[in-house]
Amino acid sequence: MKLTILGCYSATPRILANPTSQVLESQGHMFLIDCGEGTQVQLRKHKIKFNRIKHIFISHLHGDHFFGLVGLISTFRLLTRETDLHIYGPKGIKEVVTLQMKLADSWTNYQLIFHVLTSKESELIFEDDKMEVHTIPLNHRVYTNGFLFKEKEGKRKLNIGAVEEANINVAYYRKLTQGFDVVNEDGINIKNESVTKPGDKPKSYAFCSDTMYKEDIVSIIENVDVLYHESTFLETQAHLAPKTKHSTAKEAATIAKKANVGKLLLGHYSTRYKDLNGFKIEAEEVFDSVELSEDGKTFEF
Amino acid sequence: MKLTILGCYSATPRILANPTSQVLESQGHMFLIDCGEGTQVQLRKHKIKFNRIKHIFISHLHGDHFFGLVGLISTFRLLTRETDLHIYGPKGIKEVVTLQMKLADSWTNYQLIFHVLTSKESELIFEDDKMEVHTIPLNHRVYTNGFLFKEKEGKRKLNIGAVEEANINVAYYRKLTQGFDVVNEDGINIKNESVTKPGDKPKSYAFCSDTMYKEDIVSIIENVDVLYHESTFLETQAHLAPKTKHSTAKEAATIAKKANVGKLLLGHYSTRYKDLNGFKIEAEEVFDSVELSEDGKTFEF
Repeated sequence: MKLTILGCYSATPRILANPTSQVLESQGHMFLIDCGEGTQVQLRKHKIKFNRIKHIFISHLHGDHFFGLVGLISTFRLLTRETDLHIYGPKGIKEVVTLQMKLADSWTNYQLIFHVLTSKESELIFEDDKMEVHTIPLNHRVYTNGFLFKEKEGKRKLNIGAVEEANINVAYYRKLTQGFDVVNEDGINIKNESVTKPGDKPKSYAFCSDTMYKEDIVSIIENVDVLYHESTFLETQAHLAPKTKHSTAKEAATIAKKANVGKLLLGHYSTRYKDLNGFKIEAEEVFDSVELSEDGKTFEF
Repeated sequence: MKLTILGCYSATPRILANPTSQVLESQGHMFLIDCGEGTQVQLRKHKIKFNRIKHIFISHLHGDHFFGLVGLISTFRLLTRETDLHIYGPKGIKEVVTLQMKLADSWTNYQLIFHVLTSKESELIFEDDKMEVHTIPLNHRVYTNGFLFKEKEGKRKLNIGAVEEANINVAYYRKLTQGFDVVNEDGINIKNESVTKPGDKPKSYAFCSDTMYKEDIVSIIENVDVLYHESTFLETQAHLAPKTKHSTAKEAATIAKKANVGKLLLGHYSTRYKDLNGFKIEAEEVFDSVELSEDGKTFEF
């Protein structure tokens, strides 16, 4: 998986501080997660091919997470896109987009498919043979979901020496990678595990923004490789967190620790903090593996 | 008057090509004209005080002219604005903004006053003791207005030598600047023109974007100091102009010439043209005084 941070600040877009948006590349997909104002310019800046984006996930309808969506949809139209575009987000998202298309008398020539999310329980919202995407219900001032991206168990790898020694016909190699036992040239049944090894470990990524501290997400995101968890505040402003339904860096780290994740990415920093290092230091007091999101940074895992 | 170009390109925002937005400063006002995506970041870049903007004029509801509006309104809220904000624009503009505020459950703490424009004739939409703003009905794919900003005749200036020689009491000086005749210390009636001279010549600015060639705007914009007229295309692509209801540089210059304006500013260039000089050269074949809008450029007149 490769994650590119297009924007990671809260509230208002500034010259060098873009609102939330991320691109996750995994198994041939290019998922766009949230889409604050200016996201399309950030996509250009980071040379991300617009046409490869087929799924957009919007966590909630606060402006710093979706004011860039209608512009991006409109730009896709001007670029004469033909590929379907799937949009996952809260109730109302379809109305906002279609009202603006109607007023501009500018309808897309590609198919716009809205997947309106309303459940308060985690649900599977996308699946193909290689990936699953689940919602992570969060606790914010308006209806909000995080998203869990999970690769499926990959194909098994052949242990070539063992396969050849077992005298298996090449025609059966594919069945072996799919995990089946096969019969060799001598009519003997060969156990799959004796001639193959597990494929690459499937990776997973959880995106959680915006939310106040919510312990019951732990069971959903347990053991993910990377967790992005918002940290709008430091503990010095901890009193603001429940009031605005945001989290502190310490709270983000506590969730990361309880969920036993591989790495924690912090983000959605309040623009009141000039130096981001305070977030890392605060989180590292609770959890070992912490990194700071920054606009333009990429993470491969 | 001082005009700052925040963005002057058509269609999609790019890294160095912002969609339409301008700030006009005149008589203590700071008028924002159109508001494409990213306008709030452009305002910051050019150090324009957000709080001084009290009137926003939106020509039409195509994205490159108004997708930045809702974000700006929302940022004003986060900056705890208290001053009223007047928004002038086509039918539908109020619905788009209020739907998004409703979905975000984020209402402004300042007064938002919408002035919905529907007339197909030029109308006076703003007036105070120093300024008037009129619409300029344009011909585009959706309902569109340009805007004419006109300073009113300023106060007359005292010819101090003449005033003193005429033996006029200081208490009457204000009446003189207002154009009245007065009676001097000797009881003699003094003609205003004999002791004053005209004030500064009132300035005017006409903004015309987007429109196809429309000759009947000439009578509305006649003799303005500066005319901004869109020039999406060059004559080499003249066949696209009526189809998309845009203008060429030559057409913009023809309007400027017929209206006898002081200076023509070109803008709203299609991003297909890499070099903008072609626009200036083409327009100058028809009209003498031509300048190119460019993001960040200012014009004082």
